[in-house]
Amino acid sequence: MQEIVPLRIVRPGIELLDQSLLPREERYLRIATLDALCEAIRALRVRGAPLLGLAGAAGMAIASERGDASDAELRAAADAIIATRPTAVDLAARTEQAFATALAQAGTAARREALWGYAEAVQAERIAEDEAIGAAGAVLLPDGGAVLTHCNTGALATGGIGTALGVVRMAWERGMLRGCFATETRPLLQGARLTMWELMRLGIPATLLPDTAAPSLIAAGKVDAVITGADRIAANGDTANKVGTYGLAAVAARHHVPFFIAAPTSTFDLACADGASIPIEFRDASEVGGFGGERWSPDGSSGYNPAFDVTPHELIAAIVCEHGVARPPFDASLARLTFKP
Amino acid sequence: MQEIVPLRIVRPGIELLDQSLLPREERYLRIATLDALCEAIRALRVRGAPLLGLAGAAGMAIASERGDASDAELRAAADAIIATRPTAVDLAARTEQAFATALAQAGTAARREALWGYAEAVQAERIAEDEAIGAAGAVLLPDGGAVLTHCNTGALATGGIGTALGVVRMAWERGMLRGCFATETRPLLQGARLTMWELMRLGIPATLLPDTAAPSLIAAGKVDAVITGADRIAANGDTANKVGTYGLAAVAARHHVPFFIAAPTSTFDLACADGASIPIEFRDASEVGGFGGERWSPDGSSGYNPAFDVTPHELIAAIVCEHGVARPPFDASLARLTFKP
Repeated sequence: MQEIVPLRIVRPGIELLDQSLLPREERYLRIATLDALCEAIRALRVRGAPLLGLAGAAGMAIASERGDASDAELRAAADAIIATRPTAVDLAARTEQAFATALAQAGTAARREALWGYAEAVQAERIAEDEAIGAAGAVLLPDGGAVLTHCNTGALATGGIGTALGVVRMAWERGMLRGCFATETRPLLQGARLTMWELMRLGIPATLLPDTAAPSLIAAGKVDAVITGADRIAANGDTANKVGTYGLAAVAARHHVPFFIAAPTSTFDLACADGASIPIEFRDASEVGGFGGERWSPDGSSGYNPAFDVTPHELIAAIVCEHGVARPPFDASLARLTFKP
Repeated sequence: MQEIVPLRIVRPGIELLDQSLLPREERYLRIATLDALCEAIRALRVRGAPLLGLAGAAGMAIASERGDASDAELRAAADAIIATRPTAVDLAARTEQAFATALAQAGTAARREALWGYAEAVQAERIAEDEAIGAAGAVLLPDGGAVLTHCNTGALATGGIGTALGVVRMAWERGMLRGCFATETRPLLQGARLTMWELMRLGIPATLLPDTAAPSLIAAGKVDAVITGADRIAANGDTANKVGTYGLAAVAARHHVPFFIAAPTSTFDLACADGASIPIEFRDASEVGGFGGERWSPDGSSGYNPAFDVTPHELIAAIVCEHGVARPPFDASLARLTFKP
């Protein structure tokens, strides 16, 4: 098994696995300027909400290597990084936190040290958090079973071992998993492109299926658990995740197959009462009806393209985070897991 | 509105709309030899179970135009046609029926007449059957509502106005429909390629969505009914149809959205007690993880690729056929609709 490391900190820059080339080619880019980093984010060479947070923190450190790391320079760098993906919450949050960390220091050298230190801390935190999620989740999966997952929630998305895919990996390493099914995950096909690549690299028996085939796969008794990540979890346990998640959860429930969410507490939004309050991003309709160089729909087709959907809490057997496992009723269990005395 | 005619009988041959070029190009092929017809079927220039039946019948007539239409010549032609798509039931049935029809006649000229007459009768029957299904189904759709469909069940599939899409069309023509949502229908994308083309040609407001987006579309209350075709319907109403149908039916049921099947009685298989007895065809795994010139999964990926799934009868509000509407309990209603005194 080869470890998957999508972003390596190698001062005074980073090495970035160019995810836009996967699964066809595995190429690391040496990134040593703010411009190169921003281009890599815009071109989706690096993606995945938690990994973008790390990229933002590392980007601030890279920016500090030029010029004198003045307030104005660092503010401009932060604005440039955040502008690459305006809706990426972790990217903005980590970039701002890096900015604040630097400003607490006086002098160019101290600020550079603080920024690299912060980027390394973010990376270490991702690794530890994913390990904790993996350990808490692996024991939930039926021993010797096969699991179905959706989208990409692995190392390529987080920089650690991943969230839902980290659970899958840890179960596999403990000899508790028979194999993993991955949906293609239309329209952006993260399952087919990235999850399959990770599973094959990890040596986990992996089977790809069209999103349309998941319901009958579950009905055929071939799936012992479904596990996905989450983009945002409301106070009552309603969970927003990649579009298509809700359908998997609904069919799993019909067949009494447990459906699990694996996500860090940073995705818990307890100020959101329920799924109805979670805003859903709609993406460009051009993503529907084609991919890459292929277009298969008629010119001028209208498309409906939500990025996420909401799975109601009653379909979720458990929510796994770095602090443990939340079970229904989620109102109480989610609040307990995020309680800071 | 322009009529869609995928196969025209123009003795001594046919004109065939090359569906493999849709939606990019609309080109009719003049087919005047058995070889050309067989190539067109193999290359999926003509597809759709009922339309393949018509193509088989027309192919026998075309074959009779060469040589003397002897028993041996016609048998060889029938074998060649049936071998192009060995699992296409209508293709084989109509081709064999054409063969039997010809053999009941003596002499080359009489056999040619009989074969062209049979092909024309098959075409007329398709048109009449689809009209009857459309009329019976249109009144089931909620007035002024929006309907969701899957795969392609229109003129391109049948040669008439279509089955499920014929219902959609007739509701639209009666001013009873707000619009139609079409799933892409991975892996072969018949919804994106063919259904969208038909809907746009018919002037019906059409919206394409990834298969993954259908559950949240239904949950958002934007769908007033779901309607699909069927490949085979068991005695208890369990229905095999294009993979992905079951997931739509399961989610529709959760939201109390009626789910309808529209299909001719030729798809009723009352010798099949239930869905568990319906054999499901698995297609080549290479269809998963790519389309056309694009491949998005890693080399060597394993794929799970059933062509159909089974929707259990308890999720189906009604089954519409050319003789009327079957309602639960389907055991009784399906038998009644197919009763021949």
